[in-house]
Amino acid sequence: MPDTPASATASVADLSPGRGIVMSSRVRLARNLKHHSFPGWLKKKQREDLLGVIQAAVTRLPEMREPFLSRAMDAFNPLEKQTLVEEHLISREQAAKNSGSGLVINSDRTLSVMINEEDHLRLQAIHSDLHLEEAWRAVDRIDSELEDGLNFAFSPTLGYLTACPTNVGTGMRASVMLHLPGLVLGDQVNQVIKSVNQLGLTVRGLYGEGTEALGNLFQISNQTTLGESERDILNRLLKVIQHLIEHEHNARQKIARERRRVVADQLGRAYGVALHAYAMSSKEALNLLSLLILGVDLGFWPASLRAKLDDLFIHTQPAHLQQAAGKKLSAEERDAFRADLLREKLKSVPAPNIKRLKGI
Amino acid sequence: MPDTPASATASVADLSPGRGIVMSSRVRLARNLKHHSFPGWLKKKQREDLLGVIQAAVTRLPEMREPFLSRAMDAFNPLEKQTLVEEHLISREQAAKNSGSGLVINSDRTLSVMINEEDHLRLQAIHSDLHLEEAWRAVDRIDSELEDGLNFAFSPTLGYLTACPTNVGTGMRASVMLHLPGLVLGDQVNQVIKSVNQLGLTVRGLYGEGTEALGNLFQISNQTTLGESERDILNRLLKVIQHLIEHEHNARQKIARERRRVVADQLGRAYGVALHAYAMSSKEALNLLSLLILGVDLGFWPASLRAKLDDLFIHTQPAHLQQAAGKKLSAEERDAFRADLLREKLKSVPAPNIKRLKGI
Repeated sequence: MPDTPASATASVADLSPGRGIVMSSRVRLARNLKHHSFPGWLKKKQREDLLGVIQAAVTRLPEMREPFLSRAMDAFNPLEKQTLVEEHLISREQAAKNSGSGLVINSDRTLSVMINEEDHLRLQAIHSDLHLEEAWRAVDRIDSELEDGLNFAFSPTLGYLTACPTNVGTGMRASVMLHLPGLVLGDQVNQVIKSVNQLGLTVRGLYGEGTEALGNLFQISNQTTLGESERDILNRLLKVIQHLIEHEHNARQKIARERRRVVADQLGRAYGVALHAYAMSSKEALNLLSLLILGVDLGFWPASLRAKLDDLFIHTQPAHLQQAAGKKLSAEERDAFRADLLREKLKSVPAPNIKRLKGI
Repeated sequence: MPDTPASATASVADLSPGRGIVMSSRVRLARNLKHHSFPGWLKKKQREDLLGVIQAAVTRLPEMREPFLSRAMDAFNPLEKQTLVEEHLISREQAAKNSGSGLVINSDRTLSVMINEEDHLRLQAIHSDLHLEEAWRAVDRIDSELEDGLNFAFSPTLGYLTACPTNVGTGMRASVMLHLPGLVLGDQVNQVIKSVNQLGLTVRGLYGEGTEALGNLFQISNQTTLGESERDILNRLLKVIQHLIEHEHNARQKIARERRRVVADQLGRAYGVALHAYAMSSKEALNLLSLLILGVDLGFWPASLRAKLDDLFIHTQPAHLQQAAGKKLSAEERDAFRADLLREKLKSVPAPNIKRLKGI
């Protein structure tokens, strides 16, 4: 058995920092208007008035001109709301809101402003890959621009005031979505999560607080917003992310070298099921797609497949699936439609290349 | 959606009684010699002497001439013993015996005589498919022939005397191995087992008493040996088996008609995993093979595949696998070898024919 499977390690070594491991970077700021109660304490009429004021201010920003959408929450149907949640453009909490809450998303869908969620404003920038710095700059810019017209509640000692005390100070939550199948397959992920928590960062699943780590996806974010500048928080987070990328990188090299049979088995099963199942839950789809993506990263499938798999990560989610079907589907119908979609989209993918698994 | 999938129902209807559902039929008789303690109460020397006497008598029978083997249990290595267990030619209990116990198997391996298992003699006939009558006639013949030379312990009131009271009387256990994936997939199997138990029959797993129903295989046998003639026992068993075949037949038609998506999903997954896994337990292999066999019975794969699948049912078992490898393998090595064997043997099997799944 050769020590280093050339095909596998070569492609792992080729990864540029964050590529293939970091899925997306997000920064959001919580802001509130002085002299107004937080949204949860406002009467409906007051919330609606405030929505009008804030929405007007947001859509005047140069970045938000010709927005992808600018709408009150009661103007969405449930499927549209859920689609936005699946794209991480709004929170599940905002999706539950109706009149008096609203949403503005810019034309390229990198900036979203939630109005009257928990706070009067939640400004968010989302970028693919490890572009935390760019996301921060983008959200910081619209924050400064908005501050010219809106009077934000700010305390010289505490910083920005927010509905929930956990956001007081910077009001900032910076987060990075990591794909860590290597650490999961290498049984190291729990230990790594523990270390990350000890560094004052939070690890969550795909859809934020209280959600499972489906598809080997982990969202790392800052826990505290008080007593540290935005810059310090971002630097600390970035440092940890760099470490995690390194750990994941090493875990992949290790399993590709020492646990080739296990890797081949996992990839082969994911491939076999994805190509031949006729019913599949979204949870299973995420886990299979995660393994197929790992297969691409390890060089078992052509790199050109990666974009298709990333795309399926989103398009196998319940709301996206129903958008594609053009109608509401029951859970059973979704599972059937999802399996059909995967078989169709992946039918041209070759079986895992046995030659690259030699020596197992 | 058409009501009756022509391809599926046609092939189900084509089944001759028992074909595709009954795997094998067995009849065994427990016999002991008068004036000798049961094997468990004999000293080693006495057991060895008795083994010599019985082995000589057995090998003199015309049916046992030029036997496949005639040997004391201490002359087998553990792998050879386990291979015989997997072929249902000896019990797990006999496999655990050593000197003083022995075994004679006829040339075509349809008749086996275990010597000094729990009783002095256990005579067994095993036939493939639903050939219970033939099995009974074969074992009855060697029983009569042996009785000419050996003096069997027999009570005019009780019948044949045996070490365990549950065998007293006829000393007969007739059993049929059924493949019931339709009842399992249709969630009806537990109810059916309950009914069978209420009719005084026993339902067991693949390897007899206390074993799991792997691969959707169920062994149905008579519970009592006392107060009923062999003929009555066989007729009762046969009647129940005919009912079970009918039930399984109906269950298959029903799922093929009403649960096509579920069936397609199960068959597709079994196919995908069998063709792409790199490690597989014998339990998983049995369950996958069971589904592939169902696929053949439902017409999704050519009937010519059936023999190969039946063969893999045995050849993926631990001892057979090690015989094929020509050496002892660890559990991990077996799982790898088993997956490699399945991929190799099934690589020419086409993906489940989508056209036959139309309307799902």
